[in-house]
Amino acid sequence: MTARHDAVRIIEAKRDGRELDDDEIDWMVDGFTRGVVAPEQMSALAMAICFRGMTDREISRWTTAMVDSGTRMDLSGLTRGGVVVPTVDKHSTGGVGDAITLVLTPLLATWDVAVPQLSGRGLGHTGGTLDKLESIPGWRADLDTDEMRSVLSRTGAVICAAGADLAPADRALYALRDVTGTVASIPMIAASIMSKKIAEGTGALVLDVKYGSGAFLPDPAEAAELARVMVGIGAASGVRTSALVTANHTPLGRAVGNALEVAECLEILAGGGPDDMVDLTCELAREALAAVGISDADPRARLGDGRAMDSYRAMISAQGGDPDAPLPRAAHTEQIRAATTGPLRWDALGVGRASWLSGAGRTRPGEAIDPAAGVVLHRVEGDHVHAGEVVATVHAGDEGRLPAALDELAAALGTGADRGPAGAVTGRRRGW
Amino acid sequence: MTARHDAVRIIEAKRDGRELDDDEIDWMVDGFTRGVVAPEQMSALAMAICFRGMTDREISRWTTAMVDSGTRMDLSGLTRGGVVVPTVDKHSTGGVGDAITLVLTPLLATWDVAVPQLSGRGLGHTGGTLDKLESIPGWRADLDTDEMRSVLSRTGAVICAAGADLAPADRALYALRDVTGTVASIPMIAASIMSKKIAEGTGALVLDVKYGSGAFLPDPAEAAELARVMVGIGAASGVRTSALVTANHTPLGRAVGNALEVAECLEILAGGGPDDMVDLTCELAREALAAVGISDADPRARLGDGRAMDSYRAMISAQGGDPDAPLPRAAHTEQIRAATTGPLRWDALGVGRASWLSGAGRTRPGEAIDPAAGVVLHRVEGDHVHAGEVVATVHAGDEGRLPAALDELAAALGTGADRGPAGAVTGRRRGW
Repeated sequence: MTARHDAVRIIEAKRDGRELDDDEIDWMVDGFTRGVVAPEQMSALAMAICFRGMTDREISRWTTAMVDSGTRMDLSGLTRGGVVVPTVDKHSTGGVGDAITLVLTPLLATWDVAVPQLSGRGLGHTGGTLDKLESIPGWRADLDTDEMRSVLSRTGAVICAAGADLAPADRALYALRDVTGTVASIPMIAASIMSKKIAEGTGALVLDVKYGSGAFLPDPAEAAELARVMVGIGAASGVRTSALVTANHTPLGRAVGNALEVAECLEILAGGGPDDMVDLTCELAREALAAVGISDADPRARLGDGRAMDSYRAMISAQGGDPDAPLPRAAHTEQIRAATTGPLRWDALGVGRASWLSGAGRTRPGEAIDPAAGVVLHRVEGDHVHAGEVVATVHAGDEGRLPAALDELAAALGTGADRGPAGAVTGRRRGW
Repeated sequence: MTARHDAVRIIEAKRDGRELDDDEIDWMVDGFTRGVVAPEQMSALAMAICFRGMTDREISRWTTAMVDSGTRMDLSGLTRGGVVVPTVDKHSTGGVGDAITLVLTPLLATWDVAVPQLSGRGLGHTGGTLDKLESIPGWRADLDTDEMRSVLSRTGAVICAAGADLAPADRALYALRDVTGTVASIPMIAASIMSKKIAEGTGALVLDVKYGSGAFLPDPAEAAELARVMVGIGAASGVRTSALVTANHTPLGRAVGNALEVAECLEILAGGGPDDMVDLTCELAREALAAVGISDADPRARLGDGRAMDSYRAMISAQGGDPDAPLPRAAHTEQIRAATTGPLRWDALGVGRASWLSGAGRTRPGEAIDPAAGVVLHRVEGDHVHAGEVVATVHAGDEGRLPAALDELAAALGTGADRGPAGAVTGRRRGW
């Protein structure tokens, strides 16, 4: 039997609705990583998985096979001040205005834990954590493993780019799914996220699974299912995982865009900032700390008393960033006004796209972005506004980008009864 | 919008169950032919089509796009003896022991028609028409267009290999489907067959759509659906198409293997041969002739009076073959005997596989085959046999192949009530 025949047999099994066994999954993922399974074979399997799904057992095995395609980091003996500390991390499935990682990572590090946040860059209308931090002068995302461990040990917090050896099968598979219409599969989304988080070596994980127009999944029931599947994968791999299901029908906070979101995070770290972001940050912090056995935490107090800000400054400095340097500012801004009087709504996807059109996002991986571009909302969902009142400002370095961004933003502006705050927790699942 | 995005949008549309419009189909097939659409994108689309199917309109357009990827031959002015004649061709979806094309093509040419049979080589357990004819010393499958037209004009019949410019999109897509588990799709099977037949320029077409263990589709309902779809494609492309749905639960005729099947065809052309093959040949001949307006034909008479044999000899000679040269004979043969007394059954797939194992078939495209290898059945389905009676002989040039072939043949031998002859017509559909 040739490899070609093995691959066809496995694809046909999934196509016909048969559960794949462990050997088949291992063989396929390993073969794809080594180039024995051709991209066209893997994409056909991915499409069959879009239709047939995977059982929880298949998903866990698929995830493990992707972790095993590279190195699983061992952070079990990590110390801070000579004491071994538990590791805990957070992942968001992505939403418009979601910069919570920038606040949550240093906030968690004010307890005796370490937060190994390996993150990515953005594509499309949701921004990437690394893109946001790269608007800080001097800050470096690319650390090698020794540097990462050193920063983690000194500050308790690191946010850096995932190395090439972290779940390389996932990297290759994600690139393939992106061009073959096979992204929209809950099992493969779950396996992709969890393979990276398991490989980075965290002992505990809190997931923010978003739904709504600004999120990857519009439907809360699908988000709840993704949360269930990811928590199950974590449990099967010995990572204490919990998930919050949260809303993203309207942007989280008021800023959308890289430096603009960093500035908003600095407000939160200084004890202020928008309520929806502060509330969700504190919810996620309590959930993450519960996973490592810390149950009496008061995260809001540590945002208010400067400890989270100190932790943030240490983390940024440790990666070469200057926390006191001014953030980049866009050369061009233009305001948008309410057309009618009444309760306002912002559609998250529309605001995200407006930010993307202003220059904050990229169309292709590797494309340069404008760190200062984006949108600031002066009035948010639920606010009563008067016709002619300024409700948002678009920022752009390239003046030519403003008209399209403003058009998109105007289309995202609606009226109607308040649908509740972004970040509202509508579901919760724990794997322990 | 880049090509990559267009392809993803089209794949997602089909994945989500939306009908593709003409421009999308044309763009995708053309892009795939030109290398703009990547193989991994086309295979994902093919898998989505396996699940979602295609509407009759989509299938016709897909077929036309594949025809338009190369040259559609124009045989409308073809003459025999100075008179313009209609063209008519036949296609079988493939079955075990099905060498009918070798008889039917010269038989039809005894009327004032021309039969432009562009054919293929075999893969797996069903043999290819060209493989069978290549067991005739001197015979050449590869003719250029001028040679093909010349043979057709002189003899009214040609059986040759399809040129590279005949529906190249289908050639590339078939190779891709073969390795990606996406062969089993009635719309894509129909489009593949019909694109080649439409491109070869025939004005009329009769299809033999087989079902049963030896056929591509086991289920008669699926075969009937394939017949319906192909007849519809033919009608939409101006080819007068009809289809017979016929059984292949047991082998057609008594010989399975290349030279062995040629020898059986010579018996039929001499007025003898197995009833099931003669009956089906005559059914298909009447159907094909009806498509070009000849309704009073008596094909059986022309098998009996030598006219079909003369036509066959002219066709073979015109392509360099020596119709009088002895056919190759296998150096090794071994018999198989009935284990029990009672009514006999042969399973078509098992006999086909036994022939393949004896050396008559190939595992990979381009592999050499043994022209003399195969199986001859001395007793056929429905015959009452006695335990110990010789029921079949396996032929092989390589003695080492005999044991596996005999084992497979023994497993294909069963008992039970007669299920009716191979080639029995259970459905008929005309597109005019």
